[in-house]
Amino acid sequence: MKEFELINRFFTGRGITRRDVDLGIGDDCALVTIPEGCQLAVTTDTLVEGVHFFSDISPKALGHRILAVNLSDLAAMGAEPAWISIGLTLPNVDETWLEQFTEGMHDIAEYYNVQLIGGDTTQGPLTITVCAKGIVPKGKALTRSGAKVGDWLYVTGDLGDAALAIEARKQGWELSDEDRSYVQKKFDYPAPQVAAGQVLRGLANSAIDISDGLLADLNHILTHSGVGATIHADKVPVSNALKNLPDEEVRLMLAMAYGDDYQLLFTVPDSNRVAVEKRLAEYGVTPTCIGQINANAGDVSLLYKDKPWPFPATGFEHFS
Amino acid sequence: MKEFELINRFFTGRGITRRDVDLGIGDDCALVTIPEGCQLAVTTDTLVEGVHFFSDISPKALGHRILAVNLSDLAAMGAEPAWISIGLTLPNVDETWLEQFTEGMHDIAEYYNVQLIGGDTTQGPLTITVCAKGIVPKGKALTRSGAKVGDWLYVTGDLGDAALAIEARKQGWELSDEDRSYVQKKFDYPAPQVAAGQVLRGLANSAIDISDGLLADLNHILTHSGVGATIHADKVPVSNALKNLPDEEVRLMLAMAYGDDYQLLFTVPDSNRVAVEKRLAEYGVTPTCIGQINANAGDVSLLYKDKPWPFPATGFEHFS
Repeated sequence: MKEFELINRFFTGRGITRRDVDLGIGDDCALVTIPEGCQLAVTTDTLVEGVHFFSDISPKALGHRILAVNLSDLAAMGAEPAWISIGLTLPNVDETWLEQFTEGMHDIAEYYNVQLIGGDTTQGPLTITVCAKGIVPKGKALTRSGAKVGDWLYVTGDLGDAALAIEARKQGWELSDEDRSYVQKKFDYPAPQVAAGQVLRGLANSAIDISDGLLADLNHILTHSGVGATIHADKVPVSNALKNLPDEEVRLMLAMAYGDDYQLLFTVPDSNRVAVEKRLAEYGVTPTCIGQINANAGDVSLLYKDKPWPFPATGFEHFS
Repeated sequence: MKEFELINRFFTGRGITRRDVDLGIGDDCALVTIPEGCQLAVTTDTLVEGVHFFSDISPKALGHRILAVNLSDLAAMGAEPAWISIGLTLPNVDETWLEQFTEGMHDIAEYYNVQLIGGDTTQGPLTITVCAKGIVPKGKALTRSGAKVGDWLYVTGDLGDAALAIEARKQGWELSDEDRSYVQKKFDYPAPQVAAGQVLRGLANSAIDISDGLLADLNHILTHSGVGATIHADKVPVSNALKNLPDEEVRLMLAMAYGDDYQLLFTVPDSNRVAVEKRLAEYGVTPTCIGQINANAGDVSLLYKDKPWPFPATGFEHFS
């Protein structure tokens, strides 16, 4: 296991240094200070080779991804990301791989002002668990349980691109070089909506990040809030790359029932719609209203061009 | 992956509920409150099947162990354990296994007043990462870097029992039923020295938990503190089970160069010796003085009955 100690050099002394880290990597624990009047937000995500990513994923993209999926959870609560700990299990010490993996990790950590404060590296099948910690003013966090009847349903950006990247590869779909490159980048380097999440504090009634797919994650909000929703499938924002797919049912499946988008889905009372759109625009985010919350607890009414639209169950056969 | 969602029932709604957990399992993040004037202490440990434990380990012992190793790191900093997050990767959903694993986990969590606040469960090779969080009064944490020349070196309890459990099995050593049962229990259910760690705040100058072996962990203190040490090998406390091993070199190897003991190694200025021994006794802990810190940076002088004792390098051959 000696060589596994060596890999600490890929993690120690790199990345940013936050002033609220009193003791970083190197002792039995790290020590950090939470600002007065704030709560600590904590989330954990694991990525396993062959389950969450193909074995030939770029190590840099993987380093980015493990942080992105965790920061996305902090974003969904309106928390400011601060510190991460990593449990990294590797089959062997491949210095080139580690250099690229940590480069991807440190790049996104630096972008979001996040410091690695500790972890554990062990030998075994490739598995990565990150525990991300953030801070949020006390009582101001966004949750899944705050949606109110009449709230408007929004998403922060295009859905379905990561799904298209995966399925094009699995199904052997023909994509233009430009589209393939575009969706692959969306899959490889998801951008957690960290600024948007913080902007939405005090304006949105509820929020969640879209990791399991629009409909699945919407269902979490509905269940936790005890409400229902109407969704306009034709209003779900999609990229030009996805629009270039000929089969509309497949397009809608990818955009609504897939996942890995890491956009935020959130609900806004009518009185805050203008403020939300204006404040998000200041951060370059153009939210799209795709529906509304209603009182039919747990029920989703899907509309297409204002007509009831039965979700194509057969659509799933594309992915069997 | 549907069945993996079902296993949440083994984790949700069980265990203790702390008043400082504002939002537990079930949203994108958990939310907790740190008391004013305290720092957050964070540690992460991973256990991998075949690397850190035999495949036939009792699931209950494994559930205990993954928390114990993390709580031991909090203890070494003098922190009060508070919350844990778990990344659990399992090859399949075995309800009996999960019931026992979570029982072991919840039992120790309850004992130490620790609440599970979140995690991620995925399919893959058996790998467990826990990120444990604790609180410590600001500026009062124990570290590896505070040892001073003249400090007395102490350990909180017997060393080498876990090592004996492992090696007896690997080497086929004959042990009495009583001894075998005793050391197996020490290995299976390590007891992190949580109370001792908190007692030592303000009294000890440095501390570390013995996870890699006495000499290896002592070396961390010496390196971080820029000091050296004298150790009396014959004063290292060992159990009757270990004393029953005929070969003294092997006994000392197991006690000093192995690990998995999860006792604390700490250094105390002369002025605090009486207070340390008295305060620890109130918690049923009898510390043993095994040596002293000196100015020979990075150097360890091993003595046996007050005479220089060359550590038996050949001893390692027992374990090849």
